[in-house]
Amino acid sequence: MTAGRPASSDPRSVRLGALRDALATADLDALLVSSLASIRWLTGFSGSSGLVVATAKELVLLTDFRYATQVESEVGGAARVVIVSQSLWTALWEVLGGMSTVQRVGFESMHLLHRDFQRLLEQGGRWQWRPTTDVLELLRERKDATEVAAIRRAIGMAEQALAVVLESLAPGLTETQVAGRLEAALRDAGSEGFPFPSIVASGERSALPHARAGDRRLAVGDLVLLDFGAIADGYCSDITRTVVLGRASPEQVDVYEIVREANARAAAAVRPGMRGMDADAVAREYIDARGFGEAFGHSLGHGIGLEVHEGPRLARTADGVLPPGAVVTIEPGIYRPGWGGIRIEDDVLLTEEGSVVLSGFRRDLLEIA
Amino acid sequence: MTAGRPASSDPRSVRLGALRDALATADLDALLVSSLASIRWLTGFSGSSGLVVATAKELVLLTDFRYATQVESEVGGAARVVIVSQSLWTALWEVLGGMSTVQRVGFESMHLLHRDFQRLLEQGGRWQWRPTTDVLELLRERKDATEVAAIRRAIGMAEQALAVVLESLAPGLTETQVAGRLEAALRDAGSEGFPFPSIVASGERSALPHARAGDRRLAVGDLVLLDFGAIADGYCSDITRTVVLGRASPEQVDVYEIVREANARAAAAVRPGMRGMDADAVAREYIDARGFGEAFGHSLGHGIGLEVHEGPRLARTADGVLPPGAVVTIEPGIYRPGWGGIRIEDDVLLTEEGSVVLSGFRRDLLEIA
Repeated sequence: MTAGRPASSDPRSVRLGALRDALATADLDALLVSSLASIRWLTGFSGSSGLVVATAKELVLLTDFRYATQVESEVGGAARVVIVSQSLWTALWEVLGGMSTVQRVGFESMHLLHRDFQRLLEQGGRWQWRPTTDVLELLRERKDATEVAAIRRAIGMAEQALAVVLESLAPGLTETQVAGRLEAALRDAGSEGFPFPSIVASGERSALPHARAGDRRLAVGDLVLLDFGAIADGYCSDITRTVVLGRASPEQVDVYEIVREANARAAAAVRPGMRGMDADAVAREYIDARGFGEAFGHSLGHGIGLEVHEGPRLARTADGVLPPGAVVTIEPGIYRPGWGGIRIEDDVLLTEEGSVVLSGFRRDLLEIA
Repeated sequence: MTAGRPASSDPRSVRLGALRDALATADLDALLVSSLASIRWLTGFSGSSGLVVATAKELVLLTDFRYATQVESEVGGAARVVIVSQSLWTALWEVLGGMSTVQRVGFESMHLLHRDFQRLLEQGGRWQWRPTTDVLELLRERKDATEVAAIRRAIGMAEQALAVVLESLAPGLTETQVAGRLEAALRDAGSEGFPFPSIVASGERSALPHARAGDRRLAVGDLVLLDFGAIADGYCSDITRTVVLGRASPEQVDVYEIVREANARAAAAVRPGMRGMDADAVAREYIDARGFGEAFGHSLGHGIGLEVHEGPRLARTADGVLPPGAVVTIEPGIYRPGWGGIRIEDDVLLTEEGSVVLSGFRRDLLEIA
């Protein structure tokens, strides 16, 4: 295999081709990639220190000596790898200097710190630097079969763990203890880690959309909201279920059913070609019509992939068109301060034939005895 | 309590005073703080969306509506809080516009993306923007009693979890399963989360300093390296122990004793006024003299606090002087490809009277039957 050129059967080869088309469209000779998620998408490298330069002819990955063994096994021939003993930036000037035809170089405005931007101006003055936004993010929205398979595995892990933790849910446990059991079950299912701090929010705390897990003890009658995910081959899942400890009150049942119906309607309606705001509106208008519009204080969903929050957005202000191949969350919720909150979140693949709900964990209201 | 002015008995009041001194020294009218860890240090706010403006007279925190309830309980009167319904940046121009004497505004070059820097230039053109580095980071290196107490709690949680997981270590478990048990035990001990992805590396994989946890199954004779931490009130611990599954070989014992002695010497020697490179040299020269200098391929340590990697650095190239009050890791290691790796990491407080090793988990070589 030629170094710096993935085999044509390798999904990375298709991704690199798409990036090269985007570079040509943007009239750039090269793109400097500093987003670690995009570096992984292009090269397979999962380390936490790296820079990539992509041109029409080359794909070069710079990383430091700590990753020498790892990068070899992860990247193989998919990129030319430069192992750096000191600063990645010093090595970057050498790599770029060896590319005689490169003049206009894009950089990722949303993934470059001001300090590093200053380096471009001060030490990289012989190139023309052009800020870009979302070049790779837009390409990454369209998942290939390899990526969808990894997300499906991550969803399977999350659902397996949820089944385990619901078995052991009991009054007197703290939210933090429940989070620990959930995370151990995620690990037992094979998860490489946790895409975000697990949320276990009970009772009144379930009304805080950004609660994590605290020292509150679960009590009979509580709503218990669990929002968490798994990671498989770098790809994330992100699901939420809300259950009741003991018997649900009529009011809990009523509000739950509104959220469940909003989730079902949006998951069925979302499809490529629709704008993110239109998908959001499906759930929001239903909840609004039932009198809880003010209580749904966040967006309907977001893309998932190598990052647990990526494009496309499903929100009131999202006028971008949803592409085929995107995997998005559908997560309507109703939050009532002092009473509690209910959210039901699924992961949905957008295909030309419509939506495919990838997460299958039951959505009826579970009363945990 | 006056809004925007913490009570004088509040540690945040002392911190704000130190920042104001630093602003005066740097001839700045204000500092725009975008580092979330520094925002938490100044105000107590732990959310993931915020900006702070600090002047000689005011401390203003901007965050979005999702955090309205949380910010009230966390910040109290320690800052003037502005709840924003749309963009934090739009609200920032209004807040700054109301500060009639502010002209020269510092920003954090290492915590501001190029995109947001462009906003300063394009929308904030009526102020003079000055890049700063490490203004708050240097202040944060000196922990106060509240912070040291939180780090001690986080260390206690980590040690409690380590004791639990070592009890259950057995051949046939995967590294990922061990990580799951460790993390559940951390949660049971009360940890708010995980400061970094737990490392469980066994056998040959223990030679990879940046391994996480994989699907390798533990076997008799393995070195098993566990590097992990807990979080208490936002403050991190970070410890490493390496054990042997079954009986240790003479070579494992020999290498272990070198690392243990390097750890002990550096932990005893490190003190305020010393440069980071001199602390690093204590361990490195000892390991080097025993013939393993090449096998200690990373730095001796780093500060811990609200971030698990913060200043000061203890490394070959760190010429900064270590301040009193810093809590640093001491983590020498020896890594031999194909054989395995050993690291022993403790958390050490630097006081005027010398070093205090805060982590007390036993350091003799444990053979797990």
